[in-house]
Amino acid sequence: MCDDAAMDADADPDSDLTARVLASFAGTPSPRLRELTSLLVKHLHAFVAEARPTEAEWAHAIDFLTRTGQLSDDRRQEFILLSDVLGVSMQVIGINHAASETATASTVFGPFFVEGSPEFANGDDLSGGAPGDPCLVTGHIRSTTGVPLPGARIEVWQADETGHYDVQYADLPTPQGRGHLFAAPDGSYRFWTVRPVAYPIPSDGPVGELLRATARPVMRPAHIHFMVTAPAHRTLTTHVFAAGDPHLGHDAVFGERPSLITPFTHHAPGPTVDRDWYSVDFDLVLDPL
Amino acid sequence: MCDDAAMDADADPDSDLTARVLASFAGTPSPRLRELTSLLVKHLHAFVAEARPTEAEWAHAIDFLTRTGQLSDDRRQEFILLSDVLGVSMQVIGINHAASETATASTVFGPFFVEGSPEFANGDDLSGGAPGDPCLVTGHIRSTTGVPLPGARIEVWQADETGHYDVQYADLPTPQGRGHLFAAPDGSYRFWTVRPVAYPIPSDGPVGELLRATARPVMRPAHIHFMVTAPAHRTLTTHVFAAGDPHLGHDAVFGERPSLITPFTHHAPGPTVDRDWYSVDFDLVLDPL
Repeated sequence: MCDDAAMDADADPDSDLTARVLASFAGTPSPRLRELTSLLVKHLHAFVAEARPTEAEWAHAIDFLTRTGQLSDDRRQEFILLSDVLGVSMQVIGINHAASETATASTVFGPFFVEGSPEFANGDDLSGGAPGDPCLVTGHIRSTTGVPLPGARIEVWQADETGHYDVQYADLPTPQGRGHLFAAPDGSYRFWTVRPVAYPIPSDGPVGELLRATARPVMRPAHIHFMVTAPAHRTLTTHVFAAGDPHLGHDAVFGERPSLITPFTHHAPGPTVDRDWYSVDFDLVLDPL
Repeated sequence: MCDDAAMDADADPDSDLTARVLASFAGTPSPRLRELTSLLVKHLHAFVAEARPTEAEWAHAIDFLTRTGQLSDDRRQEFILLSDVLGVSMQVIGINHAASETATASTVFGPFFVEGSPEFANGDDLSGGAPGDPCLVTGHIRSTTGVPLPGARIEVWQADETGHYDVQYADLPTPQGRGHLFAAPDGSYRFWTVRPVAYPIPSDGPVGELLRATARPVMRPAHIHFMVTAPAHRTLTTHVFAAGDPHLGHDAVFGERPSLITPFTHHAPGPTVDRDWYSVDFDLVLDPL
């Protein structure tokens, strides 16, 4: 069934494959989607051409990606975690949040944000009973123009002293270490929580397999997540990192930024708190739109 | 909390991000895994740097990949389908099956192969009652050296006249259009099935969304899948394509190869079959290991 002429047509079978795939996207109505799909094909084919995966390796990649999707649900997003450990989340942050030099630096969003957190007043305790050393967090929200931003919404989420976020517990009845509040008329904010600790990113899934197979550290230095929104300003997604954490310098998700490293001050038991406690002062400065 | 020195350190925050991510994989014990992860980071970061996705676009990509994993199970593999429509499956085939000029060309494996197909004898009907015009498939299995390969295992799978594979039906009690047989002592094989028709690839999932958004055709030209294994020879994964199919030239998964296009001969009702039927003769030629 194979005559010689037909065979010759196959002699260099894939010389034009990438061109044919690119051509298949040429009719995409949206110019931006046409650009994105064309660039995806170009770079994906370049990766495959250089990596030359065996069929077993490609099947492993397919299986890895499939399991990464299947592990994700409304409480866990393993694909965001994969994007994080490959440095892509941080790269996307860098592309979209090239903040001015006087604004607070952005960092990764991470997989543990949850919509609909409880609301707190300034001075409240948002730990929700999470285990850990008490920690008072204070600061001011302002614009890079210098004006305070009263009413700015401050969303906070963090792990407890065991290194777990509330959503990682199966049956927690209420949120812990998670909430939102609004800046006071002078732009200040103030809440109690527990002192954050370094923790391993979830390593019981495909991302954990990848990190173990590549002998990469799984720890994130201690941090508290912030997302700050204010009218006429760019939303700021960032962390405060605890100065002195031994895992600074090799954050598993490349989220560390020097300007975000801030001292957490130790306080001995006293009239305010009857056990060891900590405090941190962290200003959040937003770029105008 | 942000002094000027710290701010300066962030002035060009991501100038060394890719280098830091590459460095994180430098300790990978397996040299091949180190190579694969490094190339992945290099090409993935190059894609992101050139495409400059917004955060919303990246979130859409994460969601797309997540749903692609979640739609996959033991009867459907949406990630293989994604690899297929991006031309990567065909690229991997090309890298790993650079067949000699006299061997049968390879093509995509596709998402519908199932382990453990029923065994048939030469001359049997493997349609299993699938709807369609009867079709007799014959040919010889041989080595590129010219010697016949008696006992070669021939795995066959195909869609019925509605364009569906058996595994796409929810409650089919037994396989249809799927089976394996072994080449006779002279290397010949022969089985009855139904004539394959062109069909759309599954388009109710993320891959279908992608093809619609990019105005790409979803059809595959009519074909029967073969996978042939014989001792001391390379496994051959291929299709026979039906000559004259109007979808030849724009196969949704880029699997088409000129040398695999073969006439399916029409036969009027007669003593052998009391309705219109077809036949195709398709030899399968394997490279020695």
